[in-house]
Amino acid sequence: MGVKLGYNQYGKAENRVVRVFRDSDPHEIVDYNVSVALSGGQEAPHLTGDNAPTLPTDTQKNTVYAFAAEDDVVTQPESFGIRLARHFVDNTEPITFSRVGLEMYPWTRLDNPHAFVRDGRYVRTATVTYDGTTTWVVSGLKDLIILKSTDSEFWGYYQDKYTTLQPTNDRIMATSLTAQWRHDDTDVDWGKSYDAVVEAMLNSFAGHHSLALQHTLYDMGTAVINAQPGIAEIRFSAPNKHHFIYDLDRFDIENNNEVFHADDRPYGLIEATVCRDDAGDSGLAFDPGQGW
Amino acid sequence: MGVKLGYNQYGKAENRVVRVFRDSDPHEIVDYNVSVALSGGQEAPHLTGDNAPTLPTDTQKNTVYAFAAEDDVVTQPESFGIRLARHFVDNTEPITFSRVGLEMYPWTRLDNPHAFVRDGRYVRTATVTYDGTTTWVVSGLKDLIILKSTDSEFWGYYQDKYTTLQPTNDRIMATSLTAQWRHDDTDVDWGKSYDAVVEAMLNSFAGHHSLALQHTLYDMGTAVINAQPGIAEIRFSAPNKHHFIYDLDRFDIENNNEVFHADDRPYGLIEATVCRDDAGDSGLAFDPGQGW
Amino acid sequence: MGVKLGYNQYGKAENRVVRVFRDSDPHEIVDYNVSVALSGGQEAPHLTGDNAPTLPTDTQKNTVYAFAAEDDVVTQPESFGIRLARHFVDNTEPITFSRVGLEMYPWTRLDNPHAFVRDGRYVRTATVTYDGTTTWVVSGLKDLIILKSTDSEFWGYYQDKYTTLQPTNDRIMATSLTAQWRHDDTDVDWGKSYDAVVEAMLNSFAGHHSLALQHTLYDMGTAVINAQPGIAEIRFSAPNKHHFIYDLDRFDIENNNEVFHADDRPYGLIEATVCRDDAGDSGLAFDPGQGW
Amino acid sequence: MGVKLGYNQYGKAENRVVRVFRDSDPHEIVDYNVSVALSGGQEAPHLTGDNAPTLPTDTQKNTVYAFAAEDDVVTQPESFGIRLARHFVDNTEPITFSRVGLEMYPWTRLDNPHAFVRDGRYVRTATVTYDGTTTWVVSGLKDLIILKSTDSEFWGYYQDKYTTLQPTNDRIMATSLTAQWRHDDTDVDWGKSYDAVVEAMLNSFAGHHSLALQHTLYDMGTAVINAQPGIAEIRFSAPNKHHFIYDLDRFDIENNNEVFHADDRPYGLIEATVCRDDAGDSGLAFDPGQGW
Repeated sequence: MGVKLGYNQYGKAENRVVRVFRDSDPHEIVDYNVSVALSGGQEAPHLTGDNAPTLPTDTQKNTVYAFAAEDDVVTQPESFGIRLARHFVDNTEPITFSRVGLEMYPWTRLDNPHAFVRDGRYVRTATVTYDGTTTWVVSGLKDLIILKSTDSEFWGYYQDKYTTLQPTNDRIMATSLTAQWRHDDTDVDWGKSYDAVVEAMLNSFAGHHSLALQHTLYDMGTAVINAQPGIAEIRFSAPNKHHFIYDLDRFDIENNNEVFHADDRPYGLIEATVCRDDAGDSGLAFDPGQGW
Repeated sequence: MGVKLGYNQYGKAENRVVRVFRDSDPHEIVDYNVSVALSGGQEAPHLTGDNAPTLPTDTQKNTVYAFAAEDDVVTQPESFGIRLARHFVDNTEPITFSRVGLEMYPWTRLDNPHAFVRDGRYVRTATVTYDGTTTWVVSGLKDLIILKSTDSEFWGYYQDKYTTLQPTNDRIMATSLTAQWRHDDTDVDWGKSYDAVVEAMLNSFAGHHSLALQHTLYDMGTAVINAQPGIAEIRFSAPNKHHFIYDLDRFDIENNNEVFHADDRPYGLIEATVCRDDAGDSGLAFDPGQGW
Repeated sequence: MGVKLGYNQYGKAENRVVRVFRDSDPHEIVDYNVSVALSGGQEAPHLTGDNAPTLPTDTQKNTVYAFAAEDDVVTQPESFGIRLARHFVDNTEPITFSRVGLEMYPWTRLDNPHAFVRDGRYVRTATVTYDGTTTWVVSGLKDLIILKSTDSEFWGYYQDKYTTLQPTNDRIMATSLTAQWRHDDTDVDWGKSYDAVVEAMLNSFAGHHSLALQHTLYDMGTAVINAQPGIAEIRFSAPNKHHFIYDLDRFDIENNNEVFHADDRPYGLIEATVCRDDAGDSGLAFDPGQGW
Repeated sequence: MGVKLGYNQYGKAENRVVRVFRDSDPHEIVDYNVSVALSGGQEAPHLTGDNAPTLPTDTQKNTVYAFAAEDDVVTQPESFGIRLARHFVDNTEPITFSRVGLEMYPWTRLDNPHAFVRDGRYVRTATVTYDGTTTWVVSGLKDLIILKSTDSEFWGYYQDKYTTLQPTNDRIMATSLTAQWRHDDTDVDWGKSYDAVVEAMLNSFAGHHSLALQHTLYDMGTAVINAQPGIAEIRFSAPNKHHFIYDLDRFDIENNNEVFHADDRPYGLIEATVCRDDAGDSGLAFDPGQGW
């Protein structure tokens, strides 16, 4: 019986690069966590320890910081990711595949040209994948915590012998949203597109009369694609952050859907994709690797 | 040789209570993490397992949720804490000391009367301590991440044989601020006071020409007390979140204080108190317990 | 332009179930974090809010705890996962696909029949996937932190203009290992197999003269498959936890590879699959979902 | 109205230093997270930005790594802490007070002279405080997760109108223990003492018939002081990690104290000190600072 090498990738993860634009007045800053993963031609290091085809992860790190000096690249996570992803494949002979994942932390300027407060509301993300020919760009966000204090129902569900849940016509619905959306093209006004997507998601979430978290996610996805027709698909991962009514009747206190315990675990986890109906195949955009 | 019981306290920690005000239109919500600690008369449970003097932590939990139904109490962390702290001592025969710690998570309403997004920028805190006679109120915040892209120097420091740091006239200064301020009184417009403190801190941070993080913290503390003379003292804990210039000269790229690595550990940790010069003793306001 | 629903799944995540076997003397305990994901027939809840095909995540939770009462099932994560995965598809009309992910926290008995200490060394994992016909079982572990203080080299790598890393013939190599291995069958002595895999991995790691982390992972994978021929493939995810020599020459102190700074970020992330050369296709064993 | 500087301290926190002893065969390693806090004479940096009395935190970092080269110092957290704490006060003119906090991560050697696995069971700690005259040494541990599957009762407690808890004669008792114990002297065989303390705590916990977590902590503290009479006091912080019986009657499944939900929040938090009855005052051993 023999063994063989299967899919593999390697890279430098979580490069925490901060770029200040000092030429401008007021200053601007961008703040990233950049992770690189490369593959192609790496049999020798695995099988024999011959590292000739390996671009060290230390070199990848240097490259991330070097490209952060390029003004027109670093301002948007998508353009920074495209620059890096293409570089590693196009300029490193053995490498045939790259994926660059970026988190971008938003900052808001204080009433001062050089001082900022980090806006913790959510993290913007981008994932750029390149195979030497095609470049896939996925934009996203995570940790967007949103809550509806009414306009959310859940009833009429499938029942079996383990069912004890009571139906409800009025509950709190809350989630910490992760969303990723795939673009048709690589030539997009990334900042403008991002703002439009966030606005569409929040408007849908706020205004939707929800019969299930699934129901609302689909509405949000529809709103995003209608707002930005260049988006082929959007994927949501939404933990249902349960808020349980606290029983105060025991203490002769009325609790008319007003006092809740916010529970930690377990939680529902609802994941859904909404696609433009003519969307092309997602190819390697989300796939962690060939055959993986 | 014998042993004896020393300082002890017990309570229910991290009650995650969410209160919705549904009568109002639009809705309002407040979101808390409430921790209770009690002491007094607890020798028997420790020494013999006789729990007669113990108000169970489960009962404390019920009480937190019950008092969350009181409209005029729950809207501010300080008033909610005062209500709880006094209740446990005044209405539980053996208990002589209470401390209630509260974290309050801010939410912002979306363009809708019933939908909200959590504003992750910082967490508001309060600590209320009561010994049956005196009530100490400490307000605070944590996780406020702020950064100055210039106007920060550090030089002229003490040198010894282990000194290798180079002085600088221009560096990034960033911190994730924790601050706690003690009030003279318990009769304060808590929300208005809090907003004034945050504004004073941020204005000072932004506008100060800093020669050390210590220097800036002192300026911030001075600004807070000047803005709110009913504050007796403010304590800061400020990790110096180092941003190191990345050496790009090696790649023939100019880096004029523009590309930085944001490092994780180790970090400087600067802690300082600024007091009104006639401030009374802090008593048990911050002390974790008698003799502890 | 229209939109359509793409891949979706939903379930109850992170059910923290602890089972005590009290009939036995001494007692035994097992400690799990169980996450369920289901899919199939969920168009209506997304498109119209009709929840008729939805088995609520609350019901899934009840089911996890109910099946934890079955003695022969709950003792191994793989058998617990198989029981749950098959139940949800076989007994819920609309559901056609299930995945159950389990973390199992190891405990060691103290010198007492009823007292235990949690062994934090690593977390055992299992992922069971079922499509109504085929059951895929993947065993694993995570958070296994291992370190070699010598016998690790890294040199002879690809160079470009961003290369600054110096080659080394002697470095610390450390990782926090995640490994997942896929079985050919569902009829395995899971506990015995798990122990054999861990032993093979650790022996390989310890004894291998490493020319790269990739080189050592391949050796480890080979050792695992040789020890357990019923394993078709093993996937490793190994952060290269960098230990940097601290420059003490500046203080006239010799540092002959003895004093290191353990850095946090960035880190190399090395991922590799080792397969038995006749291994069948992995099917849905690792795939997060059809077409996802 | 004027302001003044109150208590302040500063230092480099979380220096992650790993020391390998390569001369020995087999190798030995020690793994630390070291935090330094200094105070004394720091008015000028706060008030005017004159840093002349400030030993930079960067210099403190260099010192930590430099002293890690001293063989006889670095092997125990207490001796490493004493060396550092005294150095900063004795050799830095303005500094009058130091506290060094250390976490030590235990590693176990694999069946190999140069390979190790981290034993995640618990973290050993030490806190050394020095004011130029007195050196206080506190040893400790944290994250020791222990559980009793029976021999734990809770009943006979104080009742009020918010009481709903049912008394129990048989429950799971579990905690993630933090303990800190203060030594009379600085001349102790630290490793031997530490092992004796852990053994005494675990034996007490396992063998005690518990009527409350308070009851068991007192027994544990008594056992520690009896085993190590040079310990003046021990302080425990013990979250009561609740394990709730899952109601399976609803599904016609018997649950005789066997299937539990391990809850996250809220949790009881029980804190207690056990002192030798002739113990001297704890001085600055635990106090975060003069007057703080």
